[in-house]
Amino acid sequence: MKATMKRLFGVSIIFATLWVGLGVPVFAADDPLPSWNEGPAKQTIMQFVKETTYQDSPKFVPPEARIATFDQDGTLWVEHPMYTQVLYCLDRVPAVVKAKPELKNVGPFKTVLSGNREAMAKFTMKDLEKILVATLTGMPVDEFQVEVKKWLAEAKDPRWNRPYTELTYLPMQEVLKYLRANGYKTYIVTGGGQDFVRVYSERVYGIPPEHVVGTAGGTKYGYAKHGRPFLTKEPKLLLNDDNAGKPEGIHLMIGRRPYAAFGNSIGDRQMLEYTKAGHGARLSMLVLHDDAKREYAYGPAQGLPDTKVGTFTQALYDEAKKQGWTVISMRKDWKRIFAFE
Amino acid sequence: MKATMKRLFGVSIIFATLWVGLGVPVFAADDPLPSWNEGPAKQTIMQFVKETTYQDSPKFVPPEARIATFDQDGTLWVEHPMYTQVLYCLDRVPAVVKAKPELKNVGPFKTVLSGNREAMAKFTMKDLEKILVATLTGMPVDEFQVEVKKWLAEAKDPRWNRPYTELTYLPMQEVLKYLRANGYKTYIVTGGGQDFVRVYSERVYGIPPEHVVGTAGGTKYGYAKHGRPFLTKEPKLLLNDDNAGKPEGIHLMIGRRPYAAFGNSIGDRQMLEYTKAGHGARLSMLVLHDDAKREYAYGPAQGLPDTKVGTFTQALYDEAKKQGWTVISMRKDWKRIFAFE
Repeated sequence: MKATMKRLFGVSIIFATLWVGLGVPVFAADDPLPSWNEGPAKQTIMQFVKETTYQDSPKFVPPEARIATFDQDGTLWVEHPMYTQVLYCLDRVPAVVKAKPELKNVGPFKTVLSGNREAMAKFTMKDLEKILVATLTGMPVDEFQVEVKKWLAEAKDPRWNRPYTELTYLPMQEVLKYLRANGYKTYIVTGGGQDFVRVYSERVYGIPPEHVVGTAGGTKYGYAKHGRPFLTKEPKLLLNDDNAGKPEGIHLMIGRRPYAAFGNSIGDRQMLEYTKAGHGARLSMLVLHDDAKREYAYGPAQGLPDTKVGTFTQALYDEAKKQGWTVISMRKDWKRIFAFE
Repeated sequence: MKATMKRLFGVSIIFATLWVGLGVPVFAADDPLPSWNEGPAKQTIMQFVKETTYQDSPKFVPPEARIATFDQDGTLWVEHPMYTQVLYCLDRVPAVVKAKPELKNVGPFKTVLSGNREAMAKFTMKDLEKILVATLTGMPVDEFQVEVKKWLAEAKDPRWNRPYTELTYLPMQEVLKYLRANGYKTYIVTGGGQDFVRVYSERVYGIPPEHVVGTAGGTKYGYAKHGRPFLTKEPKLLLNDDNAGKPEGIHLMIGRRPYAAFGNSIGDRQMLEYTKAGHGARLSMLVLHDDAKREYAYGPAQGLPDTKVGTFTQALYDEAKKQGWTVISMRKDWKRIFAFE
């Protein structure tokens, strides 16, 4: 019996490989979204893939046009209580102050060094900007990548006591793989720093650096001694990849309108509108964090607690319903949230 | 005899397909670069591909890191006597003046309307900028794409009496295909307008819009009546993709250092330096226009006539020799220049 199963399994792998190679949609008897409960959200995703990839479908999308974009924070991984990149920046403050001692008694840097979390929670946007500029710019690109890699290997989320890169949502990882298996190119389109996310996107999401669109600053080309050229991260904002900046960033970096877009907050509204406004089948989806027990609960849509990190307003919820976007309930739609569960 | 050849040919196609599918380098008995004369330039390209794609090679490059970047004007297609995009802008002036009659008597617009080519040749950068801003910005992205497509279908180069999109270099088209067949992602990295080149890059070079990096302006997200969102091209420069802007643009849009880079002028110097400064096997090549009979001859390197369009100085030539870049001589290295020959 076991030998038979193994043989069958081997054959199904060969078939799946052939199918992918031939550009034929993959709809094995195997469920491509096993961490999703049966329901309208799962059905919508499967229906969209079917409609856009079956050769005879009136809504067939040619492979080269299959673009799907994903917000990161709160859509692909945990963003509460604070964005991972901001935690990185706060952790970098001691090293920055060591290199520039004149910052030791300056506003937000002093607060971070004091470790007073209550005071940090009251930071204005201007305070935060000072910290971001000091910790994300001024160094060579290569050096920044090394620092981020090192931090990601060591830092842990206190609630789960795991590296931040393990706090990705398994159901969304399945969507990424399912779309790619059906010829979609998957892009991250994040308000977070493009250079930051590119350090781990391939390893964590299977998304190569060139498919990461994010908030981006300029770089400056220069020469080290012996003439070796290198790029330095400049404190000059080129793309604020949030809100209207998302469709603008998609045009700049991809140059095509996505067929599918996933987000979770008001910062994703314009990307979802822009996606849905295209011709043919378009998929716009929003993750609603309504699961305080397994993850977090915040909105304030649907009476959930209000938040400044990943705000999902009732107006956004109403627009989703009106425009035919699908709201994904973490609590109801996701069987499992993390791979380590 | 003929039947035998056909059978053999059929088999070789099947094998080639299998090889590509399996990620095995393609080195058929068939020459992948038939428009190249045997010589150091052709040999350098073939050697580079062999070294970086054979699994057992000490300089093997994993498929995901195989990035090759190509300047466009003068490297992939004809740039003399004037860049194609500038001709587009000049041709658009009457329509722009019709929509904005107040421009009729303003400096460079008046000159263009007069048709005085000698006066146009004397345009300062500021004159040219006024025309570029007026003809490349201010309209919805979709409208711009329609205009460019229409122009490309109608406009003809006077020397060859053919559409500009036919004036691509066959030997370089072969390099693009050869690199892609060996797992390289081919990108255009052009000083020309990103939005302009993206209109035809897929059709002309097999390069999708998302693999075109170019000089880019901002766009502005807004809503048409009935609420349909759209993007408008803004007169705000985000990336001047020339000189140091090329490695900066590569970092912004791709996020990886190329393994191979092709250019033809001083505007490509930094891209070639940046490419060559990476570890392992790196290929930097420069096309020298030294064939007045079949195309154009300009430098002023090697005593060729001086030019403002696609300048190739003797200093660049000397740097190429010193840094181990390969100079491609159109006259000596290319058996054919155009597909229509």
